[in-house]
Amino acid sequence: MNFRQRAADNLRRVREQKPLIHNITNFVVMNYTANALLAAGASPVMAHAENEVQEMVQLAGALVLNIGTLSDDWVTAMLAAGQAASEHNTPIVLDPVGAGATRLRTKAAQRILSQTRVSIVRGNASEILALGDEATTTKGVDAVHGVDQAEATAAALATSLGTVLAITGPIDLITDGHRLLRVANGHPLLPTVTGTGCSATALVAAFAAVDDDPVAAAATALAYFGLAGEMAGTESRGPGSFMINLLDALYLMTPEQLADGCRISAA
Amino acid sequence: MNFRQRAADNLRRVREQKPLIHNITNFVVMNYTANALLAAGASPVMAHAENEVQEMVQLAGALVLNIGTLSDDWVTAMLAAGQAASEHNTPIVLDPVGAGATRLRTKAAQRILSQTRVSIVRGNASEILALGDEATTTKGVDAVHGVDQAEATAAALATSLGTVLAITGPIDLITDGHRLLRVANGHPLLPTVTGTGCSATALVAAFAAVDDDPVAAAATALAYFGLAGEMAGTESRGPGSFMINLLDALYLMTPEQLADGCRISAA
Amino acid sequence: MNFRQRAADNLRRVREQKPLIHNITNFVVMNYTANALLAAGASPVMAHAENEVQEMVQLAGALVLNIGTLSDDWVTAMLAAGQAASEHNTPIVLDPVGAGATRLRTKAAQRILSQTRVSIVRGNASEILALGDEATTTKGVDAVHGVDQAEATAAALATSLGTVLAITGPIDLITDGHRLLRVANGHPLLPTVTGTGCSATALVAAFAAVDDDPVAAAATALAYFGLAGEMAGTESRGPGSFMINLLDALYLMTPEQLADGCRISAA
Repeated sequence: MNFRQRAADNLRRVREQKPLIHNITNFVVMNYTANALLAAGASPVMAHAENEVQEMVQLAGALVLNIGTLSDDWVTAMLAAGQAASEHNTPIVLDPVGAGATRLRTKAAQRILSQTRVSIVRGNASEILALGDEATTTKGVDAVHGVDQAEATAAALATSLGTVLAITGPIDLITDGHRLLRVANGHPLLPTVTGTGCSATALVAAFAAVDDDPVAAAATALAYFGLAGEMAGTESRGPGSFMINLLDALYLMTPEQLADGCRISAA
Repeated sequence: MNFRQRAADNLRRVREQKPLIHNITNFVVMNYTANALLAAGASPVMAHAENEVQEMVQLAGALVLNIGTLSDDWVTAMLAAGQAASEHNTPIVLDPVGAGATRLRTKAAQRILSQTRVSIVRGNASEILALGDEATTTKGVDAVHGVDQAEATAAALATSLGTVLAITGPIDLITDGHRLLRVANGHPLLPTVTGTGCSATALVAAFAAVDDDPVAAAATALAYFGLAGEMAGTESRGPGSFMINLLDALYLMTPEQLADGCRISAA
Repeated sequence: MNFRQRAADNLRRVREQKPLIHNITNFVVMNYTANALLAAGASPVMAHAENEVQEMVQLAGALVLNIGTLSDDWVTAMLAAGQAASEHNTPIVLDPVGAGATRLRTKAAQRILSQTRVSIVRGNASEILALGDEATTTKGVDAVHGVDQAEATAAALATSLGTVLAITGPIDLITDGHRLLRVANGHPLLPTVTGTGCSATALVAAFAAVDDDPVAAAATALAYFGLAGEMAGTESRGPGSFMINLLDALYLMTPEQLADGCRISAA
């Protein structure tokens, strides 16, 4: 696969098709995630009521389920939306924020994985490892495991969960159990802004709405987001200016710049 | 009416009186809306508990009801707050975010309109049209209808709903069924930032708190917001810098600048 | 006490230890608060489900309870988290947003104070006075009382409530009933951005996670936040640029700059 071409094509398609991305996500990142999707050219909607989500997801090109600020009624809504999306073959992207930190989060992520057809899980190494192994502990919502530790078990875990895993860190790792890709784009300021991981997840969903191959969709979306981080990083002095420059970079980046700058490699 | 003078006077009054604006609004835009109100000189408060809203709204100069991330208990609170506001003749401004996209949203907007005394509805053309015609469809929360399509039916709809309609787009349209005003201020980057429509709604409420004529309040507030967008746009390169420059422009604009720059016309 | 040294040491410890700060806070400020904590070097987590908070708070170095957008189930979760924190001697910092404005808020703050071991209360003068005197009225969430009015009763109130009070305004006042400190850092643009008070509260919690003396923790955190405001203010023209520059300043400030610039004095 020519990843440079694929990344440019996907970005072009998002901007042309403006897919509606239905987010059931956490309170902390709703605003930034919506702005990241708009900057990329997609059309975000947030809706979480149990008596609305099935109707809303039918309008959507992809569904984001993010467990960052959870309560029982939101889990119910996520499962309802996820089941409707599964029936319509609408791609679902799960962000298991803080899985491993509390039983509520670990169990919610596992229920979503078992009761809906999740296309892609995007998380940090600790969160992803927690999906397969309850003994793994997470410190709040920040990663305490490296991508290397995750790599050893990622392929087996992807196979057993029947989904694509996109593990982000200094180098991102994407695998469906067979193929394994690495994305080397990114910037050290990214983890200093809340919601950058969640926004990466939402952009993965936007790319999955226009690319049927979830491995390619995840890798190209993470390259786009990471490259925008690199562009923002060159002109930022701290997390405040970086979070603003990142939105500008997502908006301004051309497909040609993405093709030139993306660093995706097959492992 | 001298709209230039009226706009300048309203902005001056908001800054002097600092009206408390009670918002029951959606999770995505709460932060940006509060910052837009503060930048304008108003005093925002967000409160949504059914056992609090009646007390809170009595302290307020205007009430904003925004259905952007709805659930049943929030609808209950909106109706309770709206009824208390109606009894106290406190202006209510409704933002029917996503009306037409799901039945929950369309029905909620219609219930608020029928059970409370809404002064002004601020929405995009698709959302406003959905209030009168259930057959109209909305794609998520972004407009798929133009203001022109809305204009043909806006006056009749305003009359039948008994409220002022403020339909925003490249040219904003404000009508109470008799008078029809157009506001030509605005900038193409406004729809690329989430919450700009909702913030326009909140500023309409702030102006309605200091101006008894809802048509004049809506038109002058939208001119103020659109002109701030123009000012921000000249120095922004994308949605990130634009959203920040917009807050600065709302804060820095003088009443004289507003009088000079506002483009309100009677149709 | 050498406050300059203490402030620098506390900032250094936050960056080294990266304490997890568990926030049960309001929807408006979640994003900005998380970003302020990240910029300071702490690790924020937001979790509010009654069946999760006891588990989450055991991972935390401090707990923030902020009543800015309240409903009954959130009060229940705050009490459950607060009681678990009390048992583990984890410092609790209460932000009584809007106490005095509605009974729900005043009662919730009083219940938290009576049923959990709150280390520090951070609020404006109106909110703090409302904790001791139900006759006090607050206009929404903005202060209508000065710090001077609060000073007269602050020491007695701190003693009767058995907690440290941190009353912020142009000059901040910190007292445990015996000691009384003043912090003169700050900037006029701080009240023009929503969530700056709430972020100050969260930073007080981060400093309380690394400093056993709550008076010193509160004073040094408020000096750090106020000084960051001063740094941001010199290069901002309005609330938009200020809110971004403030995050950069929190991130960029060195312990040496804090020691040089902090203005804490014993009364």
